[in-house]
Amino acid sequence: MGEKIRIAIAGYGNVGRGVKAAIEASSDMVLCGIVSRNPERVKKELGASDIMVMDINDIAGWTRELSPDLAILCGGSSTDLPVQGPKLAAHLSTVDSFDNHGEIPNYFNAMDKAAHDSGNVAVISTGWDPGIFSLERVLASSFIPGVKPYGFYGLSESGGLSMGHSDAIRRIPGVKDARQYTHAEPDAIAKVRSGGNPVLTAGEMHWRECFIVLEDSADAGAVEETVKNMPNYFAPYRTVVNFITQDELNIRFSGFPHGGCVIASGTTAEGGSAQIEYQCNWGSNPAATASVLVAHARATMRLKKDGKSGAFTILDIPPAYFSNLSREELLKKFM
Amino acid sequence: MGEKIRIAIAGYGNVGRGVKAAIEASSDMVLCGIVSRNPERVKKELGASDIMVMDINDIAGWTRELSPDLAILCGGSSTDLPVQGPKLAAHLSTVDSFDNHGEIPNYFNAMDKAAHDSGNVAVISTGWDPGIFSLERVLASSFIPGVKPYGFYGLSESGGLSMGHSDAIRRIPGVKDARQYTHAEPDAIAKVRSGGNPVLTAGEMHWRECFIVLEDSADAGAVEETVKNMPNYFAPYRTVVNFITQDELNIRFSGFPHGGCVIASGTTAEGGSAQIEYQCNWGSNPAATASVLVAHARATMRLKKDGKSGAFTILDIPPAYFSNLSREELLKKFM
Repeated sequence: MGEKIRIAIAGYGNVGRGVKAAIEASSDMVLCGIVSRNPERVKKELGASDIMVMDINDIAGWTRELSPDLAILCGGSSTDLPVQGPKLAAHLSTVDSFDNHGEIPNYFNAMDKAAHDSGNVAVISTGWDPGIFSLERVLASSFIPGVKPYGFYGLSESGGLSMGHSDAIRRIPGVKDARQYTHAEPDAIAKVRSGGNPVLTAGEMHWRECFIVLEDSADAGAVEETVKNMPNYFAPYRTVVNFITQDELNIRFSGFPHGGCVIASGTTAEGGSAQIEYQCNWGSNPAATASVLVAHARATMRLKKDGKSGAFTILDIPPAYFSNLSREELLKKFM
Repeated sequence: MGEKIRIAIAGYGNVGRGVKAAIEASSDMVLCGIVSRNPERVKKELGASDIMVMDINDIAGWTRELSPDLAILCGGSSTDLPVQGPKLAAHLSTVDSFDNHGEIPNYFNAMDKAAHDSGNVAVISTGWDPGIFSLERVLASSFIPGVKPYGFYGLSESGGLSMGHSDAIRRIPGVKDARQYTHAEPDAIAKVRSGGNPVLTAGEMHWRECFIVLEDSADAGAVEETVKNMPNYFAPYRTVVNFITQDELNIRFSGFPHGGCVIASGTTAEGGSAQIEYQCNWGSNPAATASVLVAHARATMRLKKDGKSGAFTILDIPPAYFSNLSREELLKKFM
């Protein structure tokens, strides 16, 4: 394999922690350091570790000290990445999981310019969705003519934890803590499987289950009404609200499980049925995103070696670039 | 989209017929002709059609007359492609579904040399397996550390039609006609889903169902014994033999249904569960292969435009190359 890929983690939350574990489990990579807006917090969390932790804003300093081949950006998509992304891509190659779907074209353009001007590779918007699911949507619609791929989330019995929706509930006055689980509607999945690209509203495809811890003084009825009527977040969906204690929430709902599927059902050109389904289920959503990000670090180095620069998505990357196996091994083992 | 891609079909059996239908359903391609060892048979089958049909062995003649951008090779993998493939790749770009898994590395090398020397692109061994499933095996093993991807075939209630095994039965003395359906063993699927990369024998993963029409004079018991004891084909499997009439076989078993799945179940680096499943089901196996081949014709032209030459598999192709949508459309619609 030659030299190990030197990776810096930029931003150290749940995804950053997952990336650290994933790098440490990969024989072809090494973690050269972590950069953060708050290095002291990260140092404290890491304890006796000898991992270098530096200030993310001192870009010249940490790129010199850590000499990373690339940085995996683990900041949030709403406010961190739109600013950090282009700034960092002007200095080194990057991989990120920017997941604000509607803003991806703009973010692509900003990252493409920054990375192109500096001769770096910026792989954006990867993880499982956007990321693997984006790839599966393109494959399904390329291999089954005229088909429409559908996405469903929260397939397991307990559903999938939605961080954004949990946050939205926590901002309601009287709410002390909350978790929101998204569930796919089995009837909608059956309809999509049966073909014909049915028209389905958001509320027909998923329902939402909330577990809420109230402040002592709060009015449960008022909180429930506020949740159920929240535009975009809950109003379009069948929503079930459960009030529980903080202890119960801590015990039963401490993890970040999630999962989903892409389904495409149509016909081949001569009329035969054609159905493709891709499904994944993750015990930890941020760890899954981290695992995919780290495989893209490998691909980033291959793209650089090809002399490429600019922004890339999973749609632009030869799949062999994700593997640390040689072409000969891939042909023998996986074809 | 610019100029349409001009495609010649080389070999006109079930897959070739599917490729013809798939090209005719694609707005960015045109069928410029069919070449065959037996042009008269093909002309007769096509009837009043104005499609040019020429002798596959007159390569100089048909490449001049039809001026194809590439040929989709629809011959068989056992004897046709190993000879035809390198011969044709020395004259034009090609796409094929060579599916003799163990021989793929050798075939890759032969095609790589022929295509490289002539400045052409040869996309080999694509379809759904090898092809999409190869890609999914590489993705799963790249995104879940240390996981082993498993393949199961014949997931629907009726199972999947195996052409090779049907042929093997038809060669037994006393057998007039036969169909063999492969079924996945649900217990083995459950075992794989539960993780731990279990060791499973071929016979634990699948069972085989045979529908046989006997010659009038045949000994049913002897035929059944011969089938069940056939090494590699049936001996390692639980095999059920049903004797039926030719009419029943013609009515109930005229199609080519098939399907399967790739399952990988393990953990992310920090220990969270991680499960990926890709499944496809096809009313017609050759039509499915054809649909995938035609999407690869698009990718072949993009690789040529990039200045590439030599052999490629689905593992070497950026997925966006399969789609006829622009980068902007893909980012907006599928990311």
